[in-house]
Amino acid sequence: MNDILFLNVNIVKLASNCYDQANMERTLIAETTKKVEEAVKICGWINKRRDHGKIVFLDIYDRSGTVQVVAGSEIVNSLHPQDVVCIQGKVVKRPGNLINPNLETGTIEIQAEVIEVLAKSDDLPFDMGGKELNLQLPTLLDYRSLTLRHPQIREIFKVQEVVIDGFRDILREKGFTEFQAPVIIPQTAEGGAEVFEVKYFDTVAYLAQSPQFYKQIMVGVFERVFSVNKTLRAEPSVTTRHLTEVTTLDAEMGFIKSWEEIMETVEDTIKYILKRVEKECSKALNYYGATVPNIPDSIPHIKLREAQEIIFKRTGVDHRREFDLDPEDEREITRWAQEEKGSDLVFITHYPVNKRPFYTLEDPEDPGYTLSFDLIGRGTEWLTGGQRINRLDLLLEKAKERNVDIKKSELYLQAFRFGMPPEGGFSFGSERIVMHILGLANIREASLFPRDMERVYVRLSTLKN
Amino acid sequence: MNDILFLNVNIVKLASNCYDQANMERTLIAETTKKVEEAVKICGWINKRRDHGKIVFLDIYDRSGTVQVVAGSEIVNSLHPQDVVCIQGKVVKRPGNLINPNLETGTIEIQAEVIEVLAKSDDLPFDMGGKELNLQLPTLLDYRSLTLRHPQIREIFKVQEVVIDGFRDILREKGFTEFQAPVIIPQTAEGGAEVFEVKYFDTVAYLAQSPQFYKQIMVGVFERVFSVNKTLRAEPSVTTRHLTEVTTLDAEMGFIKSWEEIMETVEDTIKYILKRVEKECSKALNYYGATVPNIPDSIPHIKLREAQEIIFKRTGVDHRREFDLDPEDEREITRWAQEEKGSDLVFITHYPVNKRPFYTLEDPEDPGYTLSFDLIGRGTEWLTGGQRINRLDLLLEKAKERNVDIKKSELYLQAFRFGMPPEGGFSFGSERIVMHILGLANIREASLFPRDMERVYVRLSTLKN
Repeated sequence: MNDILFLNVNIVKLASNCYDQANMERTLIAETTKKVEEAVKICGWINKRRDHGKIVFLDIYDRSGTVQVVAGSEIVNSLHPQDVVCIQGKVVKRPGNLINPNLETGTIEIQAEVIEVLAKSDDLPFDMGGKELNLQLPTLLDYRSLTLRHPQIREIFKVQEVVIDGFRDILREKGFTEFQAPVIIPQTAEGGAEVFEVKYFDTVAYLAQSPQFYKQIMVGVFERVFSVNKTLRAEPSVTTRHLTEVTTLDAEMGFIKSWEEIMETVEDTIKYILKRVEKECSKALNYYGATVPNIPDSIPHIKLREAQEIIFKRTGVDHRREFDLDPEDEREITRWAQEEKGSDLVFITHYPVNKRPFYTLEDPEDPGYTLSFDLIGRGTEWLTGGQRINRLDLLLEKAKERNVDIKKSELYLQAFRFGMPPEGGFSFGSERIVMHILGLANIREASLFPRDMERVYVRLSTLKN
Repeated sequence: MNDILFLNVNIVKLASNCYDQANMERTLIAETTKKVEEAVKICGWINKRRDHGKIVFLDIYDRSGTVQVVAGSEIVNSLHPQDVVCIQGKVVKRPGNLINPNLETGTIEIQAEVIEVLAKSDDLPFDMGGKELNLQLPTLLDYRSLTLRHPQIREIFKVQEVVIDGFRDILREKGFTEFQAPVIIPQTAEGGAEVFEVKYFDTVAYLAQSPQFYKQIMVGVFERVFSVNKTLRAEPSVTTRHLTEVTTLDAEMGFIKSWEEIMETVEDTIKYILKRVEKECSKALNYYGATVPNIPDSIPHIKLREAQEIIFKRTGVDHRREFDLDPEDEREITRWAQEEKGSDLVFITHYPVNKRPFYTLEDPEDPGYTLSFDLIGRGTEWLTGGQRINRLDLLLEKAKERNVDIKKSELYLQAFRFGMPPEGGFSFGSERIVMHILGLANIREASLFPRDMERVYVRLSTLKN
């Protein structure tokens, strides 16, 4: 059925069909080093070929790693990078001077005996065989199904997987229950124009910008909950930090001892995630020359006004009457935390009431300011959280003050009608945290199939015809 | 700040604020049995009260369990079910004749000393204190934020959590990588009218009905992938088995030995999930009088035509020329599998080409029929899967034959242009499998906030004003 190439060197056995041969199991490439002098069958993609006269070296990779295969040149002449192949051959030790210390299987190579081409690739539009893939962002995304295969790109999404899995792991250990929050919502109590409208039969629905109301409802059910969500925002500008679709990680907890317990939970969560990334994602960290943030015993936290005061003293820039930190403030306060506290991360707390959603609890001891926080790292926001109002009367009062049409959020209000404990939580974007850990220049690099105003996996302009 | 009730019996200490008192840590209710004769502080909701003259028994629950609290009646007169309370008191052993074997903490009770009401509840619209919550479906959903708190309802979503977590666990163990598939898609190559339209800036986008194309693309990146997805379908009818929004579990694997390896992976996955549900979800199984399906060493599999032949022989009903099983056929073949194979689950394979999506691989040894399968259990479909076409030329040919406008699915085609291995996968709905495991009558019961034509968590008709 497929093309079989018989090598003119070292042919031990001719197989009519290499791949389907049941009498030889596939060996994952990472396992080949354990099979010196044995016959193996490997399956994978051709990464690159190096021609040396009559001999050709093929780098073959599968999900476990890359290995060098030696084959006769005239036979493999028709082979391209990204061709999918199945190869039978013999594992042989390389002589000491040919060992490649940069390759996990660098102590061996495979002498090909039979090669079957399972699927041909077109000629590549750019070289995929280099250590780095230096492409402009539009090209990186226009060829996404191909560029994701390059290890430098692929490993970004191993980091995303570990971040999300770590988030689940540590919270489950802390007694949190995972729940599934909906994407389609009936209206947008949180307001804002940046919401996507859906034609919903003969009416209109919207796409959730956050699972906020649902996670609060679920505190009434499981006390401690988390969710991994698709959140959608009609972000009207193209920036390096915003997408229209992101995977956010949300947690919410009831019966908190105080709002500071939320920050402690954030700290444990972030530390655990970073530890796992450090342990499991060394490839990605190496590709991007990144290290996980340095955190002392505990992440420092200061009030917004204290931060503004520190910035004023350090730089002379007086933002003490501002309601928020601007990007340069965030960078300066990061420098302060690094220099004075030895920490790459810092909590900024007590944002003014009018800078936080209506359901945020005001600090009874510091009126006008909320029991809320942002986690700032490497000069920018990583995560946001705070304590919520848990009493219905106060919630309704605050909604009214802020002109939030909450009456239609019937199930949300219902949760408070029937008794909600003191509670709070936090939220962060998985793409954004991956971007910050690896130091990527653009959040689109941290999204498999990024969506923005101009692109829904392909450039929208190409779909107009 | 909150109401403090001082009991007239057994008052050991008066606290000005029971909840905020830092010198006593909260004890989770499940842990109280280990603290006999000790002072404890518990936090939770009042489930029910039983008045016995001057003494009132309160059942208090938190995320860990329920415990009986004894208090003086005049003091707790104002307390409702669902009030959120913090109670300090002493754990005492119950005399042997008062031990409640149906309660995990039934060997002890707590003599209340101080009760603080953290949040008041409205009067309940129905009794939440019974073992079962017998409500009509509309009421169950109209009061969702309340009804979810009843253990009979809550435990359904513990099963959903375990199903999803089990799915991830077993596949990760098998070398699969989790990825995030998008919700917003540019067009609908799979066709069908049942797709939601989104106003996307000055153009139109759609909501994904499945991550199919994306998981296939990702086979080119990680070989073996899975995803937990929100999938959205403009299901135009209100049935007991369909929702507009579901959480689906998808897996896809490359370099399969044969299409049967996909079924083996399904079998391992389902067995593992069921084992975990059996072990971790006994409460839910008890509530619904359910047992996990019985599976012999391996799940039997038969071709669709063999199934039709069996049904004909057993019942005289001749559906041998049909392209699919109807609901009664599914029930009959389930009975056959139970009686003849001792299995509650059965794979039906080889659906006709025209009953499967264009990308399904035709069986070269059985033309007209595909290398696809459904897993049937308890008389209905649980899961669907199959081998896909991995060669671009064949894929384009089949799309053309079926009038599928695939040209715009540029990134999908790109994955095949640059070499895709033989591959296949499977998909199932988490709500549906939970419904089938527990034997729920309506899939809405297995969705936290079900969406259908008439309801986006509240009845749409109530939003018209």
